[in-house]
This record gives sequence, structure tokens and C-alpha cells, in this order.
Amino acid sequence: MTADVPPAADANPHPITPLRTAIGHSTKDTVEVCGHNLTDELMGEVDFAAVFFLLVSGRLPGKGEARLFNAVLVALADHGLTPSALAARLTYTGAPEAIQGAVAAGLLGAGSVFLGVFEDAGRMLRAESPAADSTDSDLDTIATRVVEDHRSRKARLPGLGHPIHTGGDPRTARLLRIAEEEGLLGPHTRLMLRVQQAASRGRDLPLNAGGASGALLCDLGIDTAALRGIALVARSAGLVGHLVEEAHAPLGRWLWDTAERETTYTHPH
Amino acid sequence: MTADVPPAADANPHPITPLRTAIGHSTKDTVEVCGHNLTDELMGEVDFAAVFFLLVSGRLPGKGEARLFNAVLVALADHGLTPSALAARLTYTGAPEAIQGAVAAGLLGAGSVFLGVFEDAGRMLRAESPAADSTDSDLDTIATRVVEDHRSRKARLPGLGHPIHTGGDPRTARLLRIAEEEGLLGPHTRLMLRVQQAASRGRDLPLNAGGASGALLCDLGIDTAALRGIALVARSAGLVGHLVEEAHAPLGRWLWDTAERETTYTHPH
Amino acid sequence: MTADVPPAADANPHPITPLRTAIGHSTKDTVEVCGHNLTDELMGEVDFAAVFFLLVSGRLPGKGEARLFNAVLVALADHGLTPSALAARLTYTGAPEAIQGAVAAGLLGAGSVFLGVFEDAGRMLRAESPAADSTDSDLDTIATRVVEDHRSRKARLPGLGHPIHTGGDPRTARLLRIAEEEGLLGPHTRLMLRVQQAASRGRDLPLNAGGASGALLCDLGIDTAALRGIALVARSAGLVGHLVEEAHAPLGRWLWDTAERETTYTHPH
Amino acid sequence: MTADVPPAADANPHPITPLRTAIGHSTKDTVEVCGHNLTDELMGEVDFAAVFFLLVSGRLPGKGEARLFNAVLVALADHGLTPSALAARLTYTGAPEAIQGAVAAGLLGAGSVFLGVFEDAGRMLRAESPAADSTDSDLDTIATRVVEDHRSRKARLPGLGHPIHTGGDPRTARLLRIAEEEGLLGPHTRLMLRVQQAASRGRDLPLNAGGASGALLCDLGIDTAALRGIALVARSAGLVGHLVEEAHAPLGRWLWDTAERETTYTHPH
Repeated sequence: MTADVPPAADANPHPITPLRTAIGHSTKDTVEVCGHNLTDELMGEVDFAAVFFLLVSGRLPGKGEARLFNAVLVALADHGLTPSALAARLTYTGAPEAIQGAVAAGLLGAGSVFLGVFEDAGRMLRAESPAADSTDSDLDTIATRVVEDHRSRKARLPGLGHPIHTGGDPRTARLLRIAEEEGLLGPHTRLMLRVQQAASRGRDLPLNAGGASGALLCDLGIDTAALRGIALVARSAGLVGHLVEEAHAPLGRWLWDTAERETTYTHPH
Repeated sequence: MTADVPPAADANPHPITPLRTAIGHSTKDTVEVCGHNLTDELMGEVDFAAVFFLLVSGRLPGKGEARLFNAVLVALADHGLTPSALAARLTYTGAPEAIQGAVAAGLLGAGSVFLGVFEDAGRMLRAESPAADSTDSDLDTIATRVVEDHRSRKARLPGLGHPIHTGGDPRTARLLRIAEEEGLLGPHTRLMLRVQQAASRGRDLPLNAGGASGALLCDLGIDTAALRGIALVARSAGLVGHLVEEAHAPLGRWLWDTAERETTYTHPH
Repeated sequence: MTADVPPAADANPHPITPLRTAIGHSTKDTVEVCGHNLTDELMGEVDFAAVFFLLVSGRLPGKGEARLFNAVLVALADHGLTPSALAARLTYTGAPEAIQGAVAAGLLGAGSVFLGVFEDAGRMLRAESPAADSTDSDLDTIATRVVEDHRSRKARLPGLGHPIHTGGDPRTARLLRIAEEEGLLGPHTRLMLRVQQAASRGRDLPLNAGGASGALLCDLGIDTAALRGIALVARSAGLVGHLVEEAHAPLGRWLWDTAERETTYTHPH
Repeated sequence: MTADVPPAADANPHPITPLRTAIGHSTKDTVEVCGHNLTDELMGEVDFAAVFFLLVSGRLPGKGEARLFNAVLVALADHGLTPSALAARLTYTGAPEAIQGAVAAGLLGAGSVFLGVFEDAGRMLRAESPAADSTDSDLDTIATRVVEDHRSRKARLPGLGHPIHTGGDPRTARLLRIAEEEGLLGPHTRLMLRVQQAASRGRDLPLNAGGASGALLCDLGIDTAALRGIALVARSAGLVGHLVEEAHAPLGRWLWDTAERETTYTHPH
């Protein structure tokens, strides 16, 4: 088909070019996704996470990359009865006929506190452009500077600390071990580890799963614009799990009854 | 911890019992998901789709089940520039700082037309309780009845027909082949195939990927309440792919300019 | 500007014509909304509800119409600690930086149970096309038929019944009185009242505020496609009220703590 | 009812007290909203915007306050075919059965660029605590400092500039005139005007409707946490207007067809 080029819209500073999408294409007999034939090359041949990797990166992952990427998604899928999961369950209580609203509400409640970590950690690390052949000493120098810069701006370092796993986040240790086994513990993650060391002198600031994931996803070459999205897809699986449970064991309804019963109505001041 | 049992709320017909959740649990050093240790048994050991299966079914899938479940997710991940993908891209155009809003908008635009198929097909098949040892003849009888019942109510049969793949949906053929290879083509799918045959006498009504997926998910024992959710998680991956592309090649912005340029303002009548 | 007419897309049954919108238009010095100059005719001259009426109807309401329309919106603005309000509060707990996500979650949790009433009542009444000059007897005949039709299909009559206001919904009585005062109690509402009478023989089925509102909005000539939207805008005001309160008195956080504390983790069966 | 006081949750820094809500309360025969009887004092007596004011402020507005508050809502209700309105229309195209999803998508696409203005302007002005009896000279001093502080941090001043109304936003002029007529042009707005003067020396930076609204809402005593919410409720009315139009004149469908037709599929690089 010939691509129609519309005239430039005056107020738009972005160049208008023929539109392109690389995501997908359907003809009468075939479906392609990012250059791969969906039925012959993808379905039954590679797992869903590998296709997600393809959708955000434009290429299929190698075997070790797929193992690590799957591990990150698994680590992030669920965090128990978070405000996000409860919001999803309560939306489902009010609108059981449309689970998409409940999942949407859960994703909206994930919020920048949870999602922001991945992107903030990724931006912080990528801003330093740590080279693959950096020595430990090189990275220590960068890490010290990064920590001091954040301290002087009174900014929080992303990816550090955890309210429950105060001795260290078990998911972090596992992700790092898998990365090492697959030879994928790259410069961004090595830098993140040194930032954690520099920041936690005398304090309890373990590298949490969000920070570890953000760093490892950078080493996998995942686009910064995709980092939050990785967490969203992982979290959507956990939310659906909660909603299936809600359909059979309605915790949302109990919360509603409790809130109504426990709340006293007062005139505003 | 002792579970506190609140008094029954009068207006609530549902029995109030101590709350239980089986989804997940965190202690200082461990994380469990549906009875499995997250770090030791799941991360790096099974893929993300298998953990999703666990979250909605309460058990890990076998090897063949995992292959089929992954194939269903892969088949549903993306459908190109649907209204849903465009809604996500436009939401991102207005709110690039919060990708969760764009993903939420995309899921909301998936709508009952797309999502409903899985659930409607699943309900239709499960209502017939086809036995695993049903003969072809048994299933033909049921299929004929189901088709006539829908015709008499002027109700559409879910899962049939496709605007593009008029000769048959390639994703359907692939899913069925994988199911056969893994010995998972069960009574619900066999029934769905016969419903398709009974309904399409002289008409062009292939079994589409939604109908095939719904049937196969029933044979995998997936809860009816989860069927839409499976499609949502799959679709969320495609949406994130679109949004990463949008960040670099802004189709949403082009649409906005086009709509503004092409639309004439008229006084209402 | 010349309007570009694209070739008809084959699969699209809707005729493609030059795009028109009547909602609004901005030039360098003026803003028009539905044919009215925003600054000179609307701002400071008519109230917000009147402009909302204009946006959905294409004309400004008369004085009495505006009073009734405002009364409907006021009646629907808040229903206390509904699952919807709680979902909004919990989303806000997880994502306080983006109130739009919390309002969105609250609207999604309103659900078809709440919103559907307006539209279902409206459709039911409009399907009968009650004439303005119908006698009480005419309407009794129609009402009896409508009630019997619903009973034979085992379908619920929309707009009837209320869990709390079992003796009659005070909002209904007030809306009807305002409508009478303004000479706006028209054939749709008269029919709805007779449907309520025919349906509630020996049973306790008052006309609730949703049913009364749906009927009165029909008599105001509001488009059927807008009925749910009226309730959504009204409800959004109540949700923002809840969120302002949440910012200062965090009920969502209490719910979260309670849910975590009261829930026992069990292995799935 | 006795309020049950739960034990303090350890990890929660917020004091746990008996829950209170001032928003609303229903008994069998009455409904109260923020201390006012809904049916007797509100419905048919005050307009919807006044009740919205009550919900966020805890008190009903005076006559002049109501006129100004309504004018702000009217000014913000619609901005034509924004990405937000298009996202809503496209979501509706994919999910016409659930308008709440489309409205939610539209609100999510409003984004921090649009919504942030109100809150950012409000915070900026309130941080200076301008006294009601400040002289013009006092305010000039503060304004100069504020402008220089933003310049030194390379931060954008909220509320200034407009892509279309380069000579001045007509809505701003109208809002200011109404405020003066009602004696409500207070210290926050006077300060905002001086910030605009100080910032726009030699440059074209008019005070836009968002900045004017944020300032005036501060002078009306509206809680900072509510500022974005005011804009959301206003915008929801415009979105419903768009969706009613979409139901009859499907611009979303045209956009979809156009995007599909105009987009070339390319293999990713």
C-alpha cells in the first residue's frame, strides 16, 4: 500500500513522516509480530515472556536472557494485599461484570512509588553510561559521586531499602545469582551494587527487587521507556490472581462492610 | 496471628468468615506465592506464564500445559492498531509521565467485544459439562442443540467468525496442533469444534483464536472467572510494546493533529 | 479548511463523511462551546450543570429544566463509603501523586449495578414511546404489559427497590416534587410511576433515585447514550470529596493495615 | 454505634484513630451530605457546583463564591479534540457497552500537563502565604523573588503561556472580571498576576485559564489536595459530551480506519 504523507501541521514541532509500526501486521493467512511469523516461529516455540521481550526490544532474547527476564517478571508478579490489590478487589466488588476495570484500577494504584523505582533506577544508572569493561575501582568512583550528588540534593536513591526484608531482599539475591549463572550481570548492575554499598555505610539499605530489576533490565538492553511497563505486565498477572480469588472468597465485600461499620459519620468542622 | 472474626453485618448475605488469601505471603526472609517458595522454586526455575497459571489455578502447570498456556498468551498479546492500542497511545500522548494510565486505557478499550469471547465461549462449553470420554456422536448431539438454542434466541455464538482471516484463523490451527501434540485437546475443545461445524453449514464461520483459546483454557481447568483476565495480561504486553514504540515514533500525536485538521466545527442542530 | 474525505474502508458499515464536531472550537481570541461563546454567554452567566446539559443536548436548559437537572446531579453525587469510594481511596493510598487514577478507579468501580439503572430505565421507558398526552389509563395498560414482560423473561425491572430506604427513597420524592413544581413531570416519569405500582403489588419495591432520575432525564430529552454519563459526572464530584478527605484522614491506609492484619495466608488446596 | 479502635499497626507512622467520615450518611428516611440534609437543603435549593464546593470544603459557598466556582468549572469543561478526548472516543469505540471506561481513559489522558497546572500554581502561591492586606508593592517583591527562584532552578512557572491564545487567554480575562465583580480577587490571584508581569518582561507569557483558576480557587479557600480534582470533574462533563457525539458521529472509528490505512508495517531494525 502506498503511504499517504499528510501536510505538516503548523503547530506541531515534530516532523510528520509516513507512519510506521513494527509491532504487528495481519493478512488473510498470516500474522506477524515484530518481524516474526506468529504461528510458525512464536506460538509453541518461545514462551510468552520472550514474546514480550520481542515486543519491547524488537528482537527475541537468547536462552539465558529469557531465563533472567522471566525471573524478573516472576519476582514482580505479586506483592500480597497491597493497596493496589485491594483497590482491584473493591472495584471488582462494585463491577464484577467487567474485570478489565478492576485490573485497570489495580494498575493505577500501583503508583509511582512502586513503578517509579524501575525507571528511576534505570535512568540513574544509564546517565552514568558505565562501560562493560569498567573496573571495580572505576565503578566505585562513579558510585561515590552518585551517592553524594543525591545527598546534596536531598534526593532519595532509587532501589534501596525495604520495610520487611530488612536484612536483604531474598528476591534480589536470587536475581543476581541467575544473572551471574547466565553471564548477564553487566555494568549497570555492578554499578548499582556499588551505589548500594556507598549509600549504606552504617545504615540498613539493602538493594530491593525493584532496584535490582531496574539494573538488570538495563543490562538486558531494555528501553528506558519500557521499564515501568515490564512491572505493569508482571503485576497484572498477580492482580488477576487476586480477582479470581475475590470471585470465590470476597475480601472486598468484607472490607466494605468493615469500613461502613467502623466509620463514624461526623459533621465537618 | 489470631484471626479476628467481625460480627456479621446485617445487610450482607455472604457469610463472614476469617479472611484467607492463598496468593502470597512475605516474612523477613522468604516470599511465598500460592504455596511455593518464590526464590527457590519459581524464579529462574519456571517461566512467568507458569507462575501466572499458578496464581489463577493454585497449582503449577505440567510441561505440556505450560507450552499450551504460553501459546495462548502469545496468540493474544497483540492485534495491531486496534482502537484499544490507539486509545493507549493517545492517553500516553496526553500523559507520558504515567504509562500506567495508558496501559489502563488500553485495557479498558479492549472491551467486551474482545474480552467477552473467552468468557462467553467458556460458559457456553462448561454449561454442557462435556465428559472426557464423550464420543464424537455424543458431542455432535450437544453441538446441534447448542446451535439451535442460540438461533432460537437470536443470540450470537461466541468464538466464531473473523473479519480478516475469512478462510480460517491461522492462530486457531496452531493452537489446536499444539494441544494435540501435548495430549490436551479435551472435551470442551472437541465440543467447540463441533459447534463450529454445526453452525457454519453453508456459511463462513471459522473458529477464531478467542473461541479456540476459551475452549482450550477450559480443558486446562482454568477457572471461568479468570478467562477474561488471561486475555488482559496477554494484551497488556502488546500495549506496552505499542507504548515503547509511541515514545520513539509518536503515532498518537499524528492522530491528534489529523483529527484537529480534518474536523470541521459545526453549530449543533 | 478543505475536509479530506478518505476512501470508504471496506469493512466499515458506517458511512465515512467529512468529520464534524459540535462540541467546541478555539480561535486566537474566542472559545465556542456548542454554538455559544464561552466567555460572553456561559462563564458567569449560566451554571456548570447548564453547560453540561448543553454539551450533551446541544441546547441550554430553560430555568426549570436547569433546576431539575441540578437536582438530579446533586442527588447522585455521593453514596457514602461504597466499594467505588473505597477503591478510589485505596488507589489514592498507592498513588497519591496522581488523583486522576483514583477518580478513574472510583468511576470504574461504580459498575453496571449503579450506572446501569439510568440507562436500563431510560431504554425501558423510551421503548414504549409514551405520548405526552397519554391518559393515566393508557399508561396503566402499558405498565402492566411491561411488568408482565419482565416477569415472563425473569428479568429485573430497573429502578425499583432499595436496601436502606425500604419505605421509599427520600431522594425520589424530592425529585418528583421539583419536577411537578417546574411542570416537567412528563410521560416517561408518569409511566415509570405506574410500572412501580404494577410491580409492587404486595411487595416492597419503591422507585429509587436511579429509576426516578432515569425517567426524569428522559422527560428532559437527554439522549439515551448520555444517561450513564450524567451519573458518572455527578459521582466524580463525590469521589473528589472522598479523596480530599482521604488526604487528611487516611481511611484507605487503615483498610490496608486491617486487611493485612486480619487475613490469614493459607496454602491453596 | 460504638467505634472499634484497632491496635496500632507497627509499620504505620500514621496514628490510628476511630475512623471518621464527614462526606455522607444514610438512614432509612434521610440522607445527609457534609452536615446538610440532602433532600431538604440541597436538592432543588443549591446547584450541583455548590454541592461539589461543599464536598471539598465542608461548607456551602456564598452567592458570589458559587458564581465564580461555577465559572471556573465552565471554563475547564472542554478543550475540543485533545488527546484525552480522542482517547475517550477510541476507548468507547472498542467498548461502547461501558462508558465509564471511556470517561476513565479520558481522565487518565488529561495528564499532569493539564491537571498539574492547577496544583502547581496553587502550591507556588500558597507557599508564599500572601496576606489579604498585602500592598501591590509587597506582592511585587514576592513575585520578583518567585520568578528568579524558578529561573535559577530552570523550572517552568506554572500557569503561564498558551499555544493558541497568544495575545491573552479570553477565559482568564473573564474569570478575573467575575472575581472582581464578586469581590473575590484575593491575595493569591493578585500575586499570580504580578508573577505573570515579572516573568513576561519582553516575552509572550499570558496567564492561562489553568493558572488563573488555580489562583482563584486558592482565594476561594479550596484545599490544595482538591485542585486537580476540580479540573477532573469539569473535564468529565466535556468528555461525556464527546462520547454522546461519538455515539452518533463516530470520529473514533474514522481515526481507527485512518491509522490502519496510513500506517506501513516495517520489520524492526
